[in-house]
Amino acid sequence: MTGPAGGPDATLRAWAYLARVAEPPCPELIAFVRRVGPQDAAHAIWTGAEPESLTALVAARRETDCSGADLDLLANRGGRLLTFDDDEWPAVALASFRAGAANAKREANAPLALWLLGPARLDQVAERAVTMVGTRAATCYGEQVAGDLTVGVVDRDFAVVSGGAYGIDAAAHRAALAVDGVTAAVLACGIDVPYPAGHSALLHRISQRGLLVTEYPPGVRPARYRFLTRNRLAAALSRTTVVVEAGLRSGAANTAAWARMLGRGVCAVPGPVTSAASAGCHEMLRNGEAELVTRAEHVIELAGRCGELAEEPEHPATVLDHLTPLQQRVYEALPGRGAATVEQIALGAALPPEQVLGPLALLELSGLAESRDGRWRIRRERGLDRGGGDGRSAT
Amino acid sequence: MTGPAGGPDATLRAWAYLARVAEPPCPELIAFVRRVGPQDAAHAIWTGAEPESLTALVAARRETDCSGADLDLLANRGGRLLTFDDDEWPAVALASFRAGAANAKREANAPLALWLLGPARLDQVAERAVTMVGTRAATCYGEQVAGDLTVGVVDRDFAVVSGGAYGIDAAAHRAALAVDGVTAAVLACGIDVPYPAGHSALLHRISQRGLLVTEYPPGVRPARYRFLTRNRLAAALSRTTVVVEAGLRSGAANTAAWARMLGRGVCAVPGPVTSAASAGCHEMLRNGEAELVTRAEHVIELAGRCGELAEEPEHPATVLDHLTPLQQRVYEALPGRGAATVEQIALGAALPPEQVLGPLALLELSGLAESRDGRWRIRRERGLDRGGGDGRSAT
Repeated sequence: MTGPAGGPDATLRAWAYLARVAEPPCPELIAFVRRVGPQDAAHAIWTGAEPESLTALVAARRETDCSGADLDLLANRGGRLLTFDDDEWPAVALASFRAGAANAKREANAPLALWLLGPARLDQVAERAVTMVGTRAATCYGEQVAGDLTVGVVDRDFAVVSGGAYGIDAAAHRAALAVDGVTAAVLACGIDVPYPAGHSALLHRISQRGLLVTEYPPGVRPARYRFLTRNRLAAALSRTTVVVEAGLRSGAANTAAWARMLGRGVCAVPGPVTSAASAGCHEMLRNGEAELVTRAEHVIELAGRCGELAEEPEHPATVLDHLTPLQQRVYEALPGRGAATVEQIALGAALPPEQVLGPLALLELSGLAESRDGRWRIRRERGLDRGGGDGRSAT
Repeated sequence: MTGPAGGPDATLRAWAYLARVAEPPCPELIAFVRRVGPQDAAHAIWTGAEPESLTALVAARRETDCSGADLDLLANRGGRLLTFDDDEWPAVALASFRAGAANAKREANAPLALWLLGPARLDQVAERAVTMVGTRAATCYGEQVAGDLTVGVVDRDFAVVSGGAYGIDAAAHRAALAVDGVTAAVLACGIDVPYPAGHSALLHRISQRGLLVTEYPPGVRPARYRFLTRNRLAAALSRTTVVVEAGLRSGAANTAAWARMLGRGVCAVPGPVTSAASAGCHEMLRNGEAELVTRAEHVIELAGRCGELAEEPEHPATVLDHLTPLQQRVYEALPGRGAATVEQIALGAALPPEQVLGPLALLELSGLAESRDGRWRIRRERGLDRGGGDGRSAT
């Protein structure tokens, strides 16, 4: 772009120029673009005629116009530059950066434009997605749970959003790909930057079957603050963020904090208290900052539509559960070995003999007890084991 | 006892008779004893002159007087029969069965008398104790955590109350004994009944150095409902119950329910979501029925006196945390390898060059950056690794 560019792609060129001219997030720039449109905004900045509040924010890069090269690179790879003018813009998800505006920090963090690569539509992803994040130093346990939860939510047609990092992120992306689910990686660098290097192949697969998303123009390298900035997008693009494993100091906790600030659901998976990789999850749970989830259904309760509820886990039951308290008391008073008279049983149960007869008859009908020669014994055929019957389950 | 017994131990004989004549808990019997005293109550029941409301409850055993044999056995073993007339009676702890009386179920469950064996004083135990319970089918993880938590609370002079069962109970008792702590086992059988058989030696050690507690007279065998009845005492005898591991159906959950009903603190230890032995804990935590604890300090916060608070866990920090956001942004804009001019750094940080100079100077002073021939580079000597610096911890 050299001055006010014309032609059919002039608007797109202007957007590409604007998407690089200030470090995101930059609410001042967004406000200016919304007011005068992208072409006039780009022209004003290029010529030094921007509002004074913008000057310091664009001064360093205003003379750097890579818009042509950026768009060429994007076209070569089959990507696209998304702005709030596009149908695919996830307006509902990103509205939370402005709606309400109760929180200044929240309001200041909308993205100006997003660089995308992949066949999935971002608006559709954001409509029904779960953000799954966690420590890079994941344990086998954490990766297994991330995979299981991912398969469970993909099975219910949720997309899985994560950050493309090692550990939990990778386990979530990989599990989603493995079951042909939709997965999106929100990056802290340009769409062409293979970061982390060891994930080149994974990111490539995501770009072919899911979606790479970033607000950073091509070539931009990741930086500490860009990861934190990226986290807000990962949180915004779903209704619920799940932290699978996180140390006490963790980027995942930052994503979770963003999710909370944006009014999203936040869940954390517990783990062994002896595992440092779960310490951040436990702290969030103790502080009431996250809901404890153990199964995909729990996540869906938070992420899904109204009424998508988890089924209650089945509690294991034994035949004895169907007995009345009186019948149980009589049953327990039967001797562990051998047989007993009605009087002995009544004594054991601390009941008058006449109150024992009815329950005994019902226990016989249920096949739990039997009488011979006026003496009662437990029937063992049903495989019922009273041994150690302290009412506690074996699991 | 044969009718109204006289002599110096007549009252004790009466108590022993009463402690066996009805299956506990029996609030009608307690009310009667409180009204007329133990000797008159025993005599009335023995002669069939008890209040009508009691008749069905004592009819089965009124003619069985084992009081002499019971007290002999107790004397031989060095035990004692505790009643609400004794100094050692844990009146404060047991008051919650009556105080408030908002809950009928709660009110109906006070014990009449307790059979004790061991050197510890029950009133002192109950004054500063933690009840630790869990599944018999504990995992190595659960037993390790039970042991660790026990050592931690013993270290702060808490007694540890449990149920003498296999699994978590045993791990808690054993850990307390190992560090010379006080531990009490609340039994669902007579003090002379070695249950479970495999714990004969453990129960013996507890009786020599801690305390065996039961409301069941000598010789009484455990039964399903007695375990549930026992659980209420285990919960009542401390200010906080900790469930270390529990399946979905678990006696430990019953103890926790009693603790809640009695207004005690309830904690649960999380574990792997893939472990059935932690499923009950996770369910309690999800339902808000327990507080998540990972360390002994968390338990002490609930069980201890006002102001006994856990220390905040230390969050690992890096030198970069002390930088301002502007300094961080400039630091991140330094190239990963090689050096860069101020203009290049300003471009990377999206800042005017004049805003970069100050932070660069401070980074140099902090030893984080160095300049040579007008070009700036990261100083590596401090062992700072920017590689993968996405703000997430390795743990």
